[in-house]
Amino acid sequence: MYNHNDHAYMARALELAARGLYSTTPNPRVGCVIAAADSNLYRVLAEGWHEQAGQGHAEVRALQAAQAQGIDVTGATVYVTLEPCSHHGRTPPCVEALIAAKVGRVVVAMTDPNPLVAGAGLARLRAAGIEVRCGLLAAQAAALNPGFIQRMRHGRPWVRLKVATSLDGQIALASGESQWITGQQARDDGHHWRARACAILTGSGTVRADNPQLSVRAVATTRQPLRYVLDSRLTLSPTARIFAVDAATPATLITTVQSAQAFPDLMAAWQARGITVWCLPADAEGHVSLVALLAEFARHEINELHVEAGSHLNGRLLAAALVDEILHYQAPKILGPGKPAFEFGQAAPTQLAAAPQFDCIDVVQLGGDVRIRYQRQHVLSQEK
Amino acid sequence: MYNHNDHAYMARALELAARGLYSTTPNPRVGCVIAAADSNLYRVLAEGWHEQAGQGHAEVRALQAAQAQGIDVTGATVYVTLEPCSHHGRTPPCVEALIAAKVGRVVVAMTDPNPLVAGAGLARLRAAGIEVRCGLLAAQAAALNPGFIQRMRHGRPWVRLKVATSLDGQIALASGESQWITGQQARDDGHHWRARACAILTGSGTVRADNPQLSVRAVATTRQPLRYVLDSRLTLSPTARIFAVDAATPATLITTVQSAQAFPDLMAAWQARGITVWCLPADAEGHVSLVALLAEFARHEINELHVEAGSHLNGRLLAAALVDEILHYQAPKILGPGKPAFEFGQAAPTQLAAAPQFDCIDVVQLGGDVRIRYQRQHVLSQEK
Repeated sequence: MYNHNDHAYMARALELAARGLYSTTPNPRVGCVIAAADSNLYRVLAEGWHEQAGQGHAEVRALQAAQAQGIDVTGATVYVTLEPCSHHGRTPPCVEALIAAKVGRVVVAMTDPNPLVAGAGLARLRAAGIEVRCGLLAAQAAALNPGFIQRMRHGRPWVRLKVATSLDGQIALASGESQWITGQQARDDGHHWRARACAILTGSGTVRADNPQLSVRAVATTRQPLRYVLDSRLTLSPTARIFAVDAATPATLITTVQSAQAFPDLMAAWQARGITVWCLPADAEGHVSLVALLAEFARHEINELHVEAGSHLNGRLLAAALVDEILHYQAPKILGPGKPAFEFGQAAPTQLAAAPQFDCIDVVQLGGDVRIRYQRQHVLSQEK
Repeated sequence: MYNHNDHAYMARALELAARGLYSTTPNPRVGCVIAAADSNLYRVLAEGWHEQAGQGHAEVRALQAAQAQGIDVTGATVYVTLEPCSHHGRTPPCVEALIAAKVGRVVVAMTDPNPLVAGAGLARLRAAGIEVRCGLLAAQAAALNPGFIQRMRHGRPWVRLKVATSLDGQIALASGESQWITGQQARDDGHHWRARACAILTGSGTVRADNPQLSVRAVATTRQPLRYVLDSRLTLSPTARIFAVDAATPATLITTVQSAQAFPDLMAAWQARGITVWCLPADAEGHVSLVALLAEFARHEINELHVEAGSHLNGRLLAAALVDEILHYQAPKILGPGKPAFEFGQAAPTQLAAAPQFDCIDVVQLGGDVRIRYQRQHVLSQEK
């Protein structure tokens, strides 16, 4: 049984976790509240959240905060949005710290999404005589870390695809003109989603057409997401803005093993500029294999992948059922025949029942525009 | 100055007016509250609303309700959502009834939209010594009667265009399959908008492809809107469902004068079936002139015209800047190349700045779908 205070404390722990939204990569966002066990009085003893990989986990930071103020947490209840770790990673295991602190009860929102370790932390706490509850506000906790969960469970990032269209679904006029379809407020909102991503992916067509920076500018952040450009046929120039704009962390180029072998001079030119090139297997059409690409992102510990690309890459990801979420910014204008948001080629659905289907998660008005957020059906819920 | 009670009473009068949403055509929806003048006590003396043309106006019905209960309205304040009429129409003028009842004050939401008579009713009341205020909740009052206002001011109906699309803007697959893109809740919502329309317009392509009834079924209503089919080249068969389904009020066919002259046998066949055919001038491409069409609708006292048509008619109306409102039902699926909601032909915008621009009025989730309502910029506000 959970009491009313349990919900309030866990909600607060979720709030704390969200403070790490832009910074914890590749770790999950986690928050922790330590509260007096007296259920009749709302009394927080200490709080903590995970801020950055290599630094303290949420539980440890909360314990440290209590200690720094001379607060005794013996018998207290600890609320934490993700199962405390039981293994030695970048930091010592949190369960040992909780046991040593003699807390009385631990309430967890969700278990570790890694199926190989899920439950081990809870079992260790129980073995030490601590009362453990798990599952409180689990959906909200999962929504904080879709990428981490997906990477742990499926070995690929959470793919969030951003499209900005007219109300008739066009991302550009036939002439290519696309700046700007949506207004300032919608574009600024897009920077929030870039900021929370571990990495941003675009395609060679978008680099040629718009020459974007794809950096976070409209919101404050302590880190820029990594940037990747898919260029299966090595057609781009290293002088494009996305490679040139930030000498410290230039974008990474991604091409096929085949192209790299076919054009050694081009490869040498990229490397001479200090730009990392990933060479991945090609699919039957000579494009970088998307499955190989996402596996490579997972190996690089990319949780949330933010895609801002053109019709072609959008359509390929969609046809391969690799799109987990769509951020659809829709402007109140009508463009007529232009460039659609998704280009399917031969993979276009021929029956309504076969069309890719999403769930509408939320809808907001942003200035004159609308943002509709879609997720692939039943992605996070109860998935194992 | 308005006091707090004024707002509450007028809001109630707007609620009453909305009861006539499905039934007052061709008259406007109007509500009325008669309240005790004591501003410290919320005390309604009587209420009324206009229900159906030929029956009492809102003010008269409220006065009658008071009289029926023996309530004295001398010195009372009358709240009415539209300026009381001062002319003899289907019923005697409301201002005379208000003057005869010796009310003390009249608060009006908006003046009569007919520029030739606007203010005459208010002037007559003032001349009789009654205190008059006008403009309270005017925007809300205007939103109840966009069609009546537009017809009075501009001699054409309010054109509300319904489209149901995938999230990439398609109304059908390339195969033509379109039933159903949206879910039950969105489709039922569409019937509410049909019910409030004076008339429904579709095109010959939609009749051929979907053979719709275009009647109101999902909501309760005392009247069916009139139905019109645009068939510039007389290509349809009188056996189509929209003509056959309701023998009492079959749909009206609309064609060009030129087609009617060129195909006298076809015309005779339609008339033999008892189906009314409107013959209107053609535009340069041989289609019924849309300007002539809307003028004809206005002559038939059509206030709100609900359009459920295909890409071609949608695109023509849009290119002619005759679309006042778009009801955009958007389903969370992606169809790829299919049939767009709007087909512009040669009139497609070649610059973003030239694209037809709307305002987003509201957004709601309906089951799994989203409904976004757009209006042409600055249509009702302050327009003269």
